[in-house]
Amino acid sequence: MSALVIASNRGPWRFTLQPDGRLSWRRGAGGLVSALTPALEGHACTWISAAITDGDRAAADGNGSPEGPAGSQLRMLTFEPTTYERYYHDVANRTLWFLQHHLLDTAGVAFDHRFRAAWASYREVNRAFAEACDEATNPGGEVHLEDYHLALAPAMLRERRPDVRILHLVCCPWAGPDDFGVLPDAVACELLAGMLGADLIGFLTHRWARSFLACCEAAGYEVDRQRDAVRAKDGHVAHVRPYPLGVDEQDLRRLIRQGAAVTGGPDDAPSRGVPDGGRLVVRVDRLEPSKNIVRGLDAFAAFLEQNPRFLGEVTHLVLVSLSREGMAEYRRYHCEVEQRAEMVNQRFGTAGWTPVRLVVLDDHPRALRAMAAADVLVVNPVWDGMNLVAKEAACVNERDAVLILSRNAGAADDLRAGALLVNPFDTAELADTLATALSLEADDRAERARQLREGAARMPPRQWLLAQRHDLARMQTEGSAWPRGKSPAGEKGGLTSQI
Amino acid sequence: MSALVIASNRGPWRFTLQPDGRLSWRRGAGGLVSALTPALEGHACTWISAAITDGDRAAADGNGSPEGPAGSQLRMLTFEPTTYERYYHDVANRTLWFLQHHLLDTAGVAFDHRFRAAWASYREVNRAFAEACDEATNPGGEVHLEDYHLALAPAMLRERRPDVRILHLVCCPWAGPDDFGVLPDAVACELLAGMLGADLIGFLTHRWARSFLACCEAAGYEVDRQRDAVRAKDGHVAHVRPYPLGVDEQDLRRLIRQGAAVTGGPDDAPSRGVPDGGRLVVRVDRLEPSKNIVRGLDAFAAFLEQNPRFLGEVTHLVLVSLSREGMAEYRRYHCEVEQRAEMVNQRFGTAGWTPVRLVVLDDHPRALRAMAAADVLVVNPVWDGMNLVAKEAACVNERDAVLILSRNAGAADDLRAGALLVNPFDTAELADTLATALSLEADDRAERARQLREGAARMPPRQWLLAQRHDLARMQTEGSAWPRGKSPAGEKGGLTSQI
Repeated sequence: MSALVIASNRGPWRFTLQPDGRLSWRRGAGGLVSALTPALEGHACTWISAAITDGDRAAADGNGSPEGPAGSQLRMLTFEPTTYERYYHDVANRTLWFLQHHLLDTAGVAFDHRFRAAWASYREVNRAFAEACDEATNPGGEVHLEDYHLALAPAMLRERRPDVRILHLVCCPWAGPDDFGVLPDAVACELLAGMLGADLIGFLTHRWARSFLACCEAAGYEVDRQRDAVRAKDGHVAHVRPYPLGVDEQDLRRLIRQGAAVTGGPDDAPSRGVPDGGRLVVRVDRLEPSKNIVRGLDAFAAFLEQNPRFLGEVTHLVLVSLSREGMAEYRRYHCEVEQRAEMVNQRFGTAGWTPVRLVVLDDHPRALRAMAAADVLVVNPVWDGMNLVAKEAACVNERDAVLILSRNAGAADDLRAGALLVNPFDTAELADTLATALSLEADDRAERARQLREGAARMPPRQWLLAQRHDLARMQTEGSAWPRGKSPAGEKGGLTSQI
Repeated sequence: MSALVIASNRGPWRFTLQPDGRLSWRRGAGGLVSALTPALEGHACTWISAAITDGDRAAADGNGSPEGPAGSQLRMLTFEPTTYERYYHDVANRTLWFLQHHLLDTAGVAFDHRFRAAWASYREVNRAFAEACDEATNPGGEVHLEDYHLALAPAMLRERRPDVRILHLVCCPWAGPDDFGVLPDAVACELLAGMLGADLIGFLTHRWARSFLACCEAAGYEVDRQRDAVRAKDGHVAHVRPYPLGVDEQDLRRLIRQGAAVTGGPDDAPSRGVPDGGRLVVRVDRLEPSKNIVRGLDAFAAFLEQNPRFLGEVTHLVLVSLSREGMAEYRRYHCEVEQRAEMVNQRFGTAGWTPVRLVVLDDHPRALRAMAAADVLVVNPVWDGMNLVAKEAACVNERDAVLILSRNAGAADDLRAGALLVNPFDTAELADTLATALSLEADDRAERARQLREGAARMPPRQWLLAQRHDLARMQTEGSAWPRGKSPAGEKGGLTSQI
């Protein structure tokens, strides 16, 4: 039993079963784990997650499970594979993730009886998490239910444990009522009701928090825009707040040093793998449609075509890590990225110059070193909850690199002052912006780099977690009084037509 | 020169060049033309449109052009084919239409240099319309610039003719700032600025008008939500109003009678082409992705599967008219609809019963007769500015048919009381709703049919046009005073990040 319980689909360690039957482990992937791991130092807690790999399941079954980060206790939940697949791929990734990133194929998607079955699995996994949190939490304790995988768990947990303070943190963007309303009505309503079981619902920016409040209004909830609070059907009040996660420069520098001691190679300084006097454009992404890698490569090709003076001089390093390869959509996207990179190279490459170097690699320290060596960084997601690469790059870069950043990334709110913002769908604009970025004067670049560092370090992980815990405690003591005479939401959107 | 000028991409007549060199003509397609043609009776006007067919171009060149409806003068503008193609297909249909219906493929669409060229053509065609309106309009006259094809023309005309009252009427839905912001910034801003050149901007429902105001706010315009007005950069004030177009029962009955005198066939009463005691589910649509025909057929298949008692009893008549066959997207959609219909028939059909009868036909009177004979009507567009089929069916049906209606159709606002509303993406829900519709009691159906007729007839075309003209006149006399001390829009969305 712990006073603080963290629950997330993916846990802090990923276990691998060795041929000799022993378990090895390394840090799990994803921005949330990266942020929480250092932030949890000094917070005794239990961390509950799903057993994903065979190694995870072995660790969950046996007693050989190690401690979590900073001495936290680990608990892994095992699920029947079909149930997990439906919960994780069909609902969380294929539906909610794409929906919130505006990538749901509205021409083709259909919510049929198969989806209803998948939704039942999503509910089942959420219930298991809620039950595990119930068991693991001290009376009056605090539970953090992380991200869109666990949107139903807050209300389920509240029902069992009204004594517990509940945070639900959403790490993806949040779409407005029109897009959210594409979901079946019953599903949309169950999702909102599930989330509103929390005392505090956190988002990564003001923008996503506002979109969420708009969805609650469209669904007929009473929303207090002054206090950014929503009253659930049972009278419970959920508060909605942005927690714009930043980076910690010391942590990143330590990671780079540790990495350099282990690896090394052609991407490292001093040559950076580019010809003498050459310049390096870098992007670092998961292989993920929302990261917008294909349009980025198309724009790079257009840039070369329109700016022949840069031929042979500018090299584009595209560092990608594999992601969700269990889904056909992601495998197709991987192929498309490879084909686009190859097309650019065939069209523009010479004996001495490869315009695009596509490197598939899951190595955070090496990615940070590539960011450090860049002259230009391209971060152009179609939509993104935050995008920590933009902030990491701002922090570790050593050449006053110019950051080209999608205005639809949450990070744009913090880095607006120093970055060159772009519309991620506009490849012509990105091509022009690459030319601009490579032409900025040194003092302009230095000033922008300074502003970027400042924006990136604004709320580093430790402070970010403390802010959430502090608000959660305060909200509970302040109680859930609702302004007297506050009328229900006025105009209702499409979502409520049948509610 | 006229006191009233109507400008629309498509004119009231479609001309055909006969083998002997003479011109024949019939009424142009589309809801706007259908509504305006009767409404214009008694309003002397000039109607300006684009010459689209070879016959149109011959009519535009020669002097053999007949009068327009109700004695209006016709003027057709000819364009270089590539220019027209870019304006009409690349910008208006492929981009603006799909965008406003949430059907833009956000995973694949890219605004590259080719799109910039298409946009220049859109601008050129709009300028030609503005110039033609300038020439055709009396001093102090009134110009109606119809629909999303002519979004830039209002500001262009205002610049030339500040003496003229300008209406811009949008007949498609309007997407919120997130979706609208997918457009390149310069394009989005030019569109809004173009529209805001009008004195009055009309939409088909409150919902689209509100979305438009939200886009204006996101783009940094001053919006007065009390008066639903927007102040353009030059201080000019544009008013925004909904005009929910309804139908005129007398007109529809006359059309049916005229049609019956000419045609006739197996779809007519008394047998309605269904087995004795059988029931008829009807849909009537343009072959258009936003009409959501494929999901409708999938839902019909799921309905038959889950309700075997209806096998052999319920027949689905799918009456479609060809649309935009010049675009590959529409030809593909046509194939998909045919395949889906065939799949249902192969799976469920018997010697004596064909579950789906797909009829491709452009015959308004016959479509009205099919609506009259229906037991259930399915109108499930993913999004739709209004959808007049729903209202026509409500008006002419003779069997107290149940209307299943997408909540994303503008018509849902007027027909909410009598219809069964559905989420158009939810095929499981539509399958269940078909079963519900076929099980409603006679008195429930009669009461719903009464409410539907009432909602459908609320603002018939003549009244609709008069309301627009009345408001336009009133807004000009009331002037464009802006509330003192009104502050600019507060929070800005993604769209303005670079403005």
